[in-house]
Amino acid sequence: MSEIEAFAASVLMARGMARAQAAAVAGFIAAAERDACPSHGLYRLLGMLRTIDGGKVGLTAEPTLSEPRAGIVAVDAHYGFSPLAYAVGAPLLMEKAKANGLAALVIRNCFHFSALWAEVEPLAEAGFAALAMTPSHGWVAPPGGKRPVFGTNPIAFGWPRAGKPPYVFDFATSAVARGEIELHRRAGKPVPPEWGIDADGYPTTDPAAILTTGAMSTFGGYKGAALATMVELMGAALIGDFTSLESLAFDAGVGGAPMHGEIVIAFDPAGFSRGDGPDHLGRAEGLFAAIVDQEVRLPSDRRYAARQVSLRDGVRVPENLIAEIETARDRPGV
Amino acid sequence: MSEIEAFAASVLMARGMARAQAAAVAGFIAAAERDACPSHGLYRLLGMLRTIDGGKVGLTAEPTLSEPRAGIVAVDAHYGFSPLAYAVGAPLLMEKAKANGLAALVIRNCFHFSALWAEVEPLAEAGFAALAMTPSHGWVAPPGGKRPVFGTNPIAFGWPRAGKPPYVFDFATSAVARGEIELHRRAGKPVPPEWGIDADGYPTTDPAAILTTGAMSTFGGYKGAALATMVELMGAALIGDFTSLESLAFDAGVGGAPMHGEIVIAFDPAGFSRGDGPDHLGRAEGLFAAIVDQEVRLPSDRRYAARQVSLRDGVRVPENLIAEIETARDRPGV
Repeated sequence: MSEIEAFAASVLMARGMARAQAAAVAGFIAAAERDACPSHGLYRLLGMLRTIDGGKVGLTAEPTLSEPRAGIVAVDAHYGFSPLAYAVGAPLLMEKAKANGLAALVIRNCFHFSALWAEVEPLAEAGFAALAMTPSHGWVAPPGGKRPVFGTNPIAFGWPRAGKPPYVFDFATSAVARGEIELHRRAGKPVPPEWGIDADGYPTTDPAAILTTGAMSTFGGYKGAALATMVELMGAALIGDFTSLESLAFDAGVGGAPMHGEIVIAFDPAGFSRGDGPDHLGRAEGLFAAIVDQEVRLPSDRRYAARQVSLRDGVRVPENLIAEIETARDRPGV
Repeated sequence: MSEIEAFAASVLMARGMARAQAAAVAGFIAAAERDACPSHGLYRLLGMLRTIDGGKVGLTAEPTLSEPRAGIVAVDAHYGFSPLAYAVGAPLLMEKAKANGLAALVIRNCFHFSALWAEVEPLAEAGFAALAMTPSHGWVAPPGGKRPVFGTNPIAFGWPRAGKPPYVFDFATSAVARGEIELHRRAGKPVPPEWGIDADGYPTTDPAAILTTGAMSTFGGYKGAALATMVELMGAALIGDFTSLESLAFDAGVGGAPMHGEIVIAFDPAGFSRGDGPDHLGRAEGLFAAIVDQEVRLPSDRRYAARQVSLRDGVRVPENLIAEIETARDRPGV
């Protein structure tokens, strides 16, 4: 366990979280720090402590697993954070994908703080293609509307590559991450008008208007809104868990992490082949070459480059962030 | 069989297509005309005749079906057009989705001319959620690049609604349909600079430059490009069929329909429920209400409204289009 993992786990255990759940969360946090994604790293502990203080987190919950169909693994997180539930379900997801060609992992009743790449990347590393979706809090309006309906609703996808880190993308179906708008508000800076709307539904450059009485916008116009809708339908309605609007209502003003479900679908390339499995990966490599030969980066290249540096030189964490987390740790409910 | 279906089938049979394949294609064409989508209607017969004249279409091919895994239906179209292969595979796809919770239909070696909504809508009408992807011809460059890699790579999704037509979206991951750029070229009109790039990779308003030495652009910047990549990986590499670049190379300048594969994934809401199946659909209806209550349309509303009119008043087809098709029918290879 790295120093970052140990610190993150100890902070959560100080608030009463059981060791197994804290260790799983800490692993996700350390991976984000390693890949230079600080917005999903230690910083998230502040929001998690706030979420815990809201009183609804299952701190000692043990995820339970069921198999409602041959192709479905269902894990109930019992209001714990998602990483332990993912760890409990992923091995059976892979087993089922191998047996059936494809399978779905459904996690229900989980608090969610992490980036989705952390859930598709291990599956792709193990040789599977994987697609993941989860709602968030209801902050994003459909184009032409003025009230929030969707969450930032990320979609993540992973694809295995022989001898290389997997192809992975993970993006919000909102125009931009909510944290990005928050940063602009704190800095007193205007935002591009595509990022959100005011209370009357008009594009605005005022981050405060977007975050309070207005709403965030989807990326890519009506197409992004269609994808955001799909994420609500697949990651909430299909699996029988909260939509983003329901998650925000459940939060009841605490400002905590979303509580809902998620779906991860895994595909076994060997199951889809006609005995020509390796050719699949070769054809994909041809596609990647056609992209990178134009000096265009693949979505996770920046993350993987940062990882190399971290593995060589270690990860530096701002001292004031550690101090802020320690203060929050020592003053529950403040 | 409607008048439109009978006409479309007769045109194709005049060129040697077997009755079953011609009837399946004609059904897709008639559905597009009924829903006021003329770009995927009778107009497509002109391109199909050109494709047939290229000499590679399996006009009398009978699709063959296999089951490589419990969750996978694989249909080889043997170079026929896709609709018959879809019709052969869809019933078993639904059966497998019921048994396993989810299942995939893979169609290989098919010429493709149709909109994907026509493939997810029947599944959603039968009570399944469905997601479909297919490559096309390599016409679309990644953002920051200057050479085509992707096709227009549509993604379609369907969701069942009790007592209503399903929620369905179907959109290209390119900024716009290629036909739209063609129309601007014919009319001598400039296009918005987001639609494509010139040979040097710069945004251009010249439709001819995009269609010849340049490339089309993806929608939504790098996020649209990520989705376009996923469509190539899932609809080509995973299933062991042509990428969009390979499809264009196979066309060898004929200007015919793409030849490749497609993947359709079906999900049975009952399999994902915890015995609360109807609640799933109720939660989805709450989501749709939150959208339409803002006077925002759902993606297929226009199509369904047009359908109502067609079912009441019939469909009007331009006489000059019929004449053009009849001329093409009677002069093979010209």
